[in-house]
Amino acid sequence: MINRSINFTPGPSQLYFTVPDHIRTAFREGIPSLSHRSKKFESIYRDTVDGLRALLGLPADYQIFFTGSATEIWERSIQNLVAVNSFHIVNGSFSKRYFEIAQQLQKQPVKIEFGAGQPFTAEIPVPTDPQMELIAVTHNETSTGVSIPLDYIYKLRAANPQALLVVDAVSSLPFPDFDYSKIDSAFFSVQKGFGLPAGLGVWMVNDRCMTKADQLLSRGISIGSYHTIPSLKAHALKFQTPETPNVLGIYLLSKVIADMLRHGIKRIRNETEYKANILYQALEMHAYLKPYVADKVFQSKTVIVADTGDHTEKITKLLLDKGLQPGDGYGAAKKSQLRFANFPTHAKEHFELLVDTLALN
Amino acid sequence: MINRSINFTPGPSQLYFTVPDHIRTAFREGIPSLSHRSKKFESIYRDTVDGLRALLGLPADYQIFFTGSATEIWERSIQNLVAVNSFHIVNGSFSKRYFEIAQQLQKQPVKIEFGAGQPFTAEIPVPTDPQMELIAVTHNETSTGVSIPLDYIYKLRAANPQALLVVDAVSSLPFPDFDYSKIDSAFFSVQKGFGLPAGLGVWMVNDRCMTKADQLLSRGISIGSYHTIPSLKAHALKFQTPETPNVLGIYLLSKVIADMLRHGIKRIRNETEYKANILYQALEMHAYLKPYVADKVFQSKTVIVADTGDHTEKITKLLLDKGLQPGDGYGAAKKSQLRFANFPTHAKEHFELLVDTLALN
Repeated sequence: MINRSINFTPGPSQLYFTVPDHIRTAFREGIPSLSHRSKKFESIYRDTVDGLRALLGLPADYQIFFTGSATEIWERSIQNLVAVNSFHIVNGSFSKRYFEIAQQLQKQPVKIEFGAGQPFTAEIPVPTDPQMELIAVTHNETSTGVSIPLDYIYKLRAANPQALLVVDAVSSLPFPDFDYSKIDSAFFSVQKGFGLPAGLGVWMVNDRCMTKADQLLSRGISIGSYHTIPSLKAHALKFQTPETPNVLGIYLLSKVIADMLRHGIKRIRNETEYKANILYQALEMHAYLKPYVADKVFQSKTVIVADTGDHTEKITKLLLDKGLQPGDGYGAAKKSQLRFANFPTHAKEHFELLVDTLALN
Repeated sequence: MINRSINFTPGPSQLYFTVPDHIRTAFREGIPSLSHRSKKFESIYRDTVDGLRALLGLPADYQIFFTGSATEIWERSIQNLVAVNSFHIVNGSFSKRYFEIAQQLQKQPVKIEFGAGQPFTAEIPVPTDPQMELIAVTHNETSTGVSIPLDYIYKLRAANPQALLVVDAVSSLPFPDFDYSKIDSAFFSVQKGFGLPAGLGVWMVNDRCMTKADQLLSRGISIGSYHTIPSLKAHALKFQTPETPNVLGIYLLSKVIADMLRHGIKRIRNETEYKANILYQALEMHAYLKPYVADKVFQSKTVIVADTGDHTEKITKLLLDKGLQPGDGYGAAKKSQLRFANFPTHAKEHFELLVDTLALN
């Protein structure tokens, strides 16, 4: 029931290896036609959020909501948390899109941008501005493999205590060990690190976010309709959703989280570090390949981008021959870079085979 | 791989009977981790829209978009098609929610309401108002089993030619044979008549809708961000979506549409009529049950609601003993009504067994 070659594209990526089994169980138990107003659905919702709290160490003042995609969360977070001013750290295509969504929603977003193809240096400034209502940080830029250090993220909020700090962790969770008391919201979509079929976004928000959305609403600002924070929260407290959601996706997420809890989050993080280290080392020692992000401080552990230049096609073919499917470079880098997802489903053995194949060529 | 009892709840309902097979094929072909920017995804999108055009007889000036749910389409249609004035025919809980969403989006919606539990009479007025920008009609009220006659829907637009007529066909398609040249938009979610796992809405819009969204945008009205009609259209023309969508859901929809085309839409419609007729007849002839909607003109063919009064619990148990799962009444009618979905996956034999079981008690 599983596709043979190992998929290293950074999303949708390789399925978590237990997903085919869980799908079979789901059909046996009637999950695909389960009513979202049933007790059974409520218990699946509860399992999912309890599991996620345990896996990520999420504090009690956070609520967990489901949306159609992480793209939707870009929109909902601006709509629900910003009257006028959002501030965006732009370090690639996806963080830029988040900024543009704030413009489309007629807010007045401000950005500091680290130009296309120009990785962060160690001297990124910590801006302060008492007008900032929300600071948007893309923890891991899927397009470039640039990751923003957690220390820097925490400093942003410490310097702007009135602002809400929202972390796009789409292609990094469950790897990063965030201190959730130092941020206000984080979100991801399930087709990356959680290895699930696409079609579900997961949004975690703390009390400060919920208060802010209530304030906007009482000031007469439209924050949307069915997917406002107050509506999502009222339903989440009953382990329900405002609309008929992707029930099968939520069920599969609950099962994969349970698998990850059994495997252990510490072990998942250690294995991720190990796999990232051997791949970066192989790229650094290679005759004609190198990591795109040179500065170790900004190297993503979960999406590793290689400068492959004129060798891109040849390397791709060699990897495919071994059953290893690399991801293309993003946008303009499509023919000069390769991207490798390093998610919990990617086994150490897959990475060892990947590294050996690269080293021999 | 399939759940045993036949699920007559009106959504999420019984899966279309071919879905378990299609899921197996999907996993074999790597669909759950397929990139939404791949050629293969584009061909799945194309198959889905081509199939739907053929199945429903959709004219060439319509585009087909995918969303997370039909609830999302309530929101997007108001956001993209209304500057100020929408008009709502309210005949139950779901059409009322559509009206409320327009209020939440700070438009000035107007409604004519057919009071709770009060079915339509044959003398529904055709309102006219040159201010109306959008007329929202819920073709089939899943909560009450009231269906609005197509003639009446067409008259609404003929009397208000400046308005866009949007039909919520969530629990009726693919059954109704709409004349799409006499409406402007229709939408559904896949977990009802198409018998698929929930988590996907399908929105069909004609050129007039696309022009209206462009007009609002050029007047400086915010129509959203990634799921605006112009953004959805620009991607649809390339058989793509703005965000990472529910790829597996779209794939399954394409396969079920192909199955329905093979079965024949005429046959599906004839079978639906037959099944509805025998159930309504059984209810009318019954000693102590009756159809909730008395007037044949307004009786839904796809969601049939029975007044079961004090016998509700007993009838439910009798049906469950035969492997037939009825749907509860909606809201306040939970203990005094039963609802029966009559979707393409419900076989004539299932309905005959249902009718025989009711007749004997």
